[in-house]
Amino acid sequence: MQSVAVPHRASATAIAAAVRGGRISARAVLEDHLARIAAHDGVFNCFTTLTTDRARDEADAVDAKIAAGGDAGPLAGVPVAVKNLYDIAGLPTRAGSKLYRDAAPAMADAPVLARLIDAGAVLLGALNMDEFAYGFTTENAHDGPTRNPHDVARSAGGSSGGSAAAVAAGFAPITLGSDTNGSIRLPAALCGVFGLKPTYGALDRCGTFPFVDSLDHLGPFARCPEDIARAFDVMRGVAPTPIGDAGEMRVATLGGWFAQQATPAALDAVRLVAAALGAQGEAVLPEAGRARAAAFCITAAEGGALHFEMLKTRAEEYDPATRPRLMAGALLPAHIVQAAQRFRAWFAAQAALLFERYDALLAPVTPCAAPLIGQARMMLGGKEVPVRPNLGLYTQPISFIGLPVVAVPVYAAGALPLGVQIITAPGREAVGLALAKRLEADGVTRAAVVP
Amino acid sequence: MQSVAVPHRASATAIAAAVRGGRISARAVLEDHLARIAAHDGVFNCFTTLTTDRARDEADAVDAKIAAGGDAGPLAGVPVAVKNLYDIAGLPTRAGSKLYRDAAPAMADAPVLARLIDAGAVLLGALNMDEFAYGFTTENAHDGPTRNPHDVARSAGGSSGGSAAAVAAGFAPITLGSDTNGSIRLPAALCGVFGLKPTYGALDRCGTFPFVDSLDHLGPFARCPEDIARAFDVMRGVAPTPIGDAGEMRVATLGGWFAQQATPAALDAVRLVAAALGAQGEAVLPEAGRARAAAFCITAAEGGALHFEMLKTRAEEYDPATRPRLMAGALLPAHIVQAAQRFRAWFAAQAALLFERYDALLAPVTPCAAPLIGQARMMLGGKEVPVRPNLGLYTQPISFIGLPVVAVPVYAAGALPLGVQIITAPGREAVGLALAKRLEADGVTRAAVVP
Repeated sequence: MQSVAVPHRASATAIAAAVRGGRISARAVLEDHLARIAAHDGVFNCFTTLTTDRARDEADAVDAKIAAGGDAGPLAGVPVAVKNLYDIAGLPTRAGSKLYRDAAPAMADAPVLARLIDAGAVLLGALNMDEFAYGFTTENAHDGPTRNPHDVARSAGGSSGGSAAAVAAGFAPITLGSDTNGSIRLPAALCGVFGLKPTYGALDRCGTFPFVDSLDHLGPFARCPEDIARAFDVMRGVAPTPIGDAGEMRVATLGGWFAQQATPAALDAVRLVAAALGAQGEAVLPEAGRARAAAFCITAAEGGALHFEMLKTRAEEYDPATRPRLMAGALLPAHIVQAAQRFRAWFAAQAALLFERYDALLAPVTPCAAPLIGQARMMLGGKEVPVRPNLGLYTQPISFIGLPVVAVPVYAAGALPLGVQIITAPGREAVGLALAKRLEADGVTRAAVVP
Repeated sequence: MQSVAVPHRASATAIAAAVRGGRISARAVLEDHLARIAAHDGVFNCFTTLTTDRARDEADAVDAKIAAGGDAGPLAGVPVAVKNLYDIAGLPTRAGSKLYRDAAPAMADAPVLARLIDAGAVLLGALNMDEFAYGFTTENAHDGPTRNPHDVARSAGGSSGGSAAAVAAGFAPITLGSDTNGSIRLPAALCGVFGLKPTYGALDRCGTFPFVDSLDHLGPFARCPEDIARAFDVMRGVAPTPIGDAGEMRVATLGGWFAQQATPAALDAVRLVAAALGAQGEAVLPEAGRARAAAFCITAAEGGALHFEMLKTRAEEYDPATRPRLMAGALLPAHIVQAAQRFRAWFAAQAALLFERYDALLAPVTPCAAPLIGQARMMLGGKEVPVRPNLGLYTQPISFIGLPVVAVPVYAAGALPLGVQIITAPGREAVGLALAKRLEADGVTRAAVVP
């Protein structure tokens, strides 16, 4: 993807190389992206705020630096955008809510965003999300739903739906989201792009609106593994290095919980990746269903505690999809949370045992492709179940113990996108990225700009 | 206290020296203590189990070792006893309950007890307590109340009431207890003996029945600071060293919360200690009342979570004084516990700021002397309040953040005992012990065997 003839279809890596090499200006890259947004975001509804003036200033500053012979950084001229729970200097950080729409403007960019800008990136604006990140579909009562670029009748997934759809739609080659129970992996899968949920604690969460302190992760979206790696390196403050060769890796597919309830298409996607990576059969992470249940409890309780004071006086201003779960969470008996935390330690130890035998574990991201916007129920494993909670069936047990995951898109032309989780041991993001790159080289995974 | 003419009035340090020096046999020390127990424990009700056969075997083994010229250890021939929540090999660990009275016998002594025995101590048995350590009066519905040796109509304090009363009664020079919200400091004060609640985490809690994981501490009782120091050193596995000289110490009295509601006698005790230590006026630990409230919430929630499964099927077998609080705690909304935990971090930081200016802080242990057994209400600060929860008014905020405390007895002849907390920074038990020793040398603090 080295061509930048159509900038909004190029990778961040290609854009930065072209801008640094003087083959295209940052301003030209920006204007191409702004035109793309103007043409399509009326339908997709990714952006809740555009920072056009700031973007032009930043792009011009990059071009001026290059004209003066300076180093414009590893993301020179790369348009980026962030979920609207990241602080952007001068804007209220709304976190998908109506409540914080008139909050005091942030005094500075969130540190991870500031690093992207320092590296030459150009900020386009803030992106739609489920209110307070508590959802899997980005059907926001205040800002409207984000529509999936692959089928505008369908959800983009959530809660970072605006971030995933913006990358799929060619609005930006890199966006940032957050993942508490699947909120990066899930929209990445449903929008057919790559997403990285790093190890818990790997990225500085300062300047982002919290949801569940013990489960919140930040991370990037992109259309290729190399862009994900570059964004991740810049966000954590290390010099970007190209993805290495995976070499001989011991890969297994997660069985049990992670092979149940999924549609045939979702399981086929995992099989395809497993075959391409020479997976050595099946591994079982015991009690994954219980891990998901425990993640639900901790999410509701910590989220509810965070919003408790606000709920007491301004409950009617919450999104109806968010409010009752936060209220119930605030009142959840403490013994349930204690039990969930105790179980978490046990479950993390079980995962650690698996990583003695395997370098990476594979699982579907979602049990099915994107549901329709407004769809309340669906069939899973022969049973009718509610859509929203069940999209995170396979992502929740993994974020529950903070393991890094690269979500890779795997789907046939004309079919709706699906995703596969490449799960590695804590701190081993590089392994997941190397495997994703191998899959990309072999044509197993791909991310296209649509339409 | 070097004489061992009447062994049950001698210190552990004096007994060990005499036994090691061949001036008295461990067996003679033991039989003197057993006779004392036989004469008085029918009234005081300290012991729930006597391990007489084991004690005679251990005493004889000490004597045999000395006869053979061996090193019998720093606690050679010292009788000890433990709150019945410590594992004793071969006995069920009842933790004051009826529910665990027929539990499987412990396979080994709790590690801290095993260290005392390895150091030459002789185990007399297990001591009475509030059920599951959830109380301040040792009025146990199953085992009856422990009576205060200073006035048998009065409570010994709790929850380690059997441990404190046994030391006051001359049943053992050293006993072990546990302190979650004051359960060592409080009975030490009301029975007129010394008690140490070490820094949170300082002593291995393995082999003891838990109550509140984030607040539980183990610790010793004795009739002099030197015995406390020796027991503490042995329990934590270091070679016993005599208490050092305190030198110039910056001491302050805690004002605000810790000076309100107390009886004049309790405040006089603090004033006496402050004057003897040259205290430099008053320090304020802000929001101590809120710290106490937060400790209540965490106690109920963690304790309730621990007992939740058992309460579902066997609630009627709990002590009526314990059951409703555990049930309510199990159902406490999680947001309350989250808020309490957040506040704990803030409050610990406030204490740390005080320790930049002071080496030790003084406060009453209890607001008043021992209440009558069965007494439900009392007057405090001009208001009628329930007795049980209010005895821990001044101890709860301190254990809440794990600070080490030496409780020293301060009372006039003929008056009921009272106690003063000498509170130091985490890990600075040595400072508290040195100050306690100085007070003992100056005749300000004293612990007598009664009657």
